[in-house]
Amino acid sequence: MTDVNARIDALERRLQDAEDRLALLQIIAAYGPAVDSGTPEATAQLWTEDGSYDTSIIEMRGRDELRAMVLGERHQGLIRGGAAHLQGIPHIDLDGDTATVTHYSQLVQRDAGTDSFRIWRTGVNQWKFVRTPEGWKATHRVNRQLDGTDPGRELLASTIDPALRED
Amino acid sequence: MTDVNARIDALERRLQDAEDRLALLQIIAAYGPAVDSGTPEATAQLWTEDGSYDTSIIEMRGRDELRAMVLGERHQGLIRGGAAHLQGIPHIDLDGDTATVTHYSQLVQRDAGTDSFRIWRTGVNQWKFVRTPEGWKATHRVNRQLDGTDPGRELLASTIDPALRED
Amino acid sequence: MTDVNARIDALERRLQDAEDRLALLQIIAAYGPAVDSGTPEATAQLWTEDGSYDTSIIEMRGRDELRAMVLGERHQGLIRGGAAHLQGIPHIDLDGDTATVTHYSQLVQRDAGTDSFRIWRTGVNQWKFVRTPEGWKATHRVNRQLDGTDPGRELLASTIDPALRED
Repeated sequence: MTDVNARIDALERRLQDAEDRLALLQIIAAYGPAVDSGTPEATAQLWTEDGSYDTSIIEMRGRDELRAMVLGERHQGLIRGGAAHLQGIPHIDLDGDTATVTHYSQLVQRDAGTDSFRIWRTGVNQWKFVRTPEGWKATHRVNRQLDGTDPGRELLASTIDPALRED
Repeated sequence: MTDVNARIDALERRLQDAEDRLALLQIIAAYGPAVDSGTPEATAQLWTEDGSYDTSIIEMRGRDELRAMVLGERHQGLIRGGAAHLQGIPHIDLDGDTATVTHYSQLVQRDAGTDSFRIWRTGVNQWKFVRTPEGWKATHRVNRQLDGTDPGRELLASTIDPALRED
Repeated sequence: MTDVNARIDALERRLQDAEDRLALLQIIAAYGPAVDSGTPEATAQLWTEDGSYDTSIIEMRGRDELRAMVLGERHQGLIRGGAAHLQGIPHIDLDGDTATVTHYSQLVQRDAGTDSFRIWRTGVNQWKFVRTPEGWKATHRVNRQLDGTDPGRELLASTIDPALRED
């Protein structure tokens, strides 16, 4: 039985890792629907109560500020004009009960006066997640634009070399 | 042995969930290659025999209409001009032998007279899948454009709040 | 015990399949950060020592040529101007210790003189991977543009019909 139990233990650990990756993918896939539908609570619940989001333009701290962003005139005007917050495939580093997830994102807008959409923003996002009784929740998210300046490339470099990550 | 069998039972259930998510991701990843290569059978086989696809412009019902769309002049002209049907990361809700999968999609076209591509369409898609002996097959797919009108935002809202979904 | 061991054997095989898919997704998700941060070693390490990358413009053979591409003036100029190599959701065919992975990709650039980004390239990529002691490594990658010419559609067709794949 020792051998059987050891094999089951190993399977449980490996499966947990796979499940964590799929759960984090699901959270990243929920972000666009949450903000582009203009749903403040679903957006806020992706973060911990005091989780932060630094968009490179503003920094929101805590769920109340996240809810306020979704309900704010700027965001509501954006989605009423036609907008999509596209999130790319995630690069996931798991470390026990924390995780670092990095992906590209784009903000695409209906281009008034044409029959096309335009790409307004293209950036890289790095999230820090923590495992909670309610599942994985974000403690931090940073977005840096890929506009040729250093911060975007530095955040990308830290994706593939964890030693470069800020904590 | 009771304990061992119970642990194996639990692993089998959890692994089935992970496998279902990966299988649905694979199907969404096959859609673009199927339609952009102009392959009618591979496209039709993603749906059940009487599965439907409401593109917001037309509604196709059954595999014959899906095959006809791929072979049609409009679609063939599109792909001969240079086109990509890009599908975003999927948000997956499993419920036993059915699943709801939501993701963004874009239709990108070679922009004649320039060296660029343009985004012609950006929308949200919600698929209903059923488990069959041949694997997961779509019974319905709905696409709504994110052009600032209500239907797109409503479909996004239903992604994160299943109570808002139409059946 | 026979039954228990057989069930554990089956779980181990199935879990390996899921883990392989997640590992390949992680590699595809690492490509953009590697090249857009301008990190030659992380880029080269996605391939085997003599792995190749046919971009449809040039063909690189071996890690030295991959490193040289990342460090080259053309690529460095691109990322200093603002660029994102976006990789789409992967379609994965596993076959023991080899795998074929296909996905769309886009090269998006800061559009000087505007507040937008433009899509310069949109194509399909097919990678061949081999399992090594250091994990999955690419032996070949081919990119074909979806510009209306045949090679892009042919590569897409081979994604959904393995009989059409070149070896």
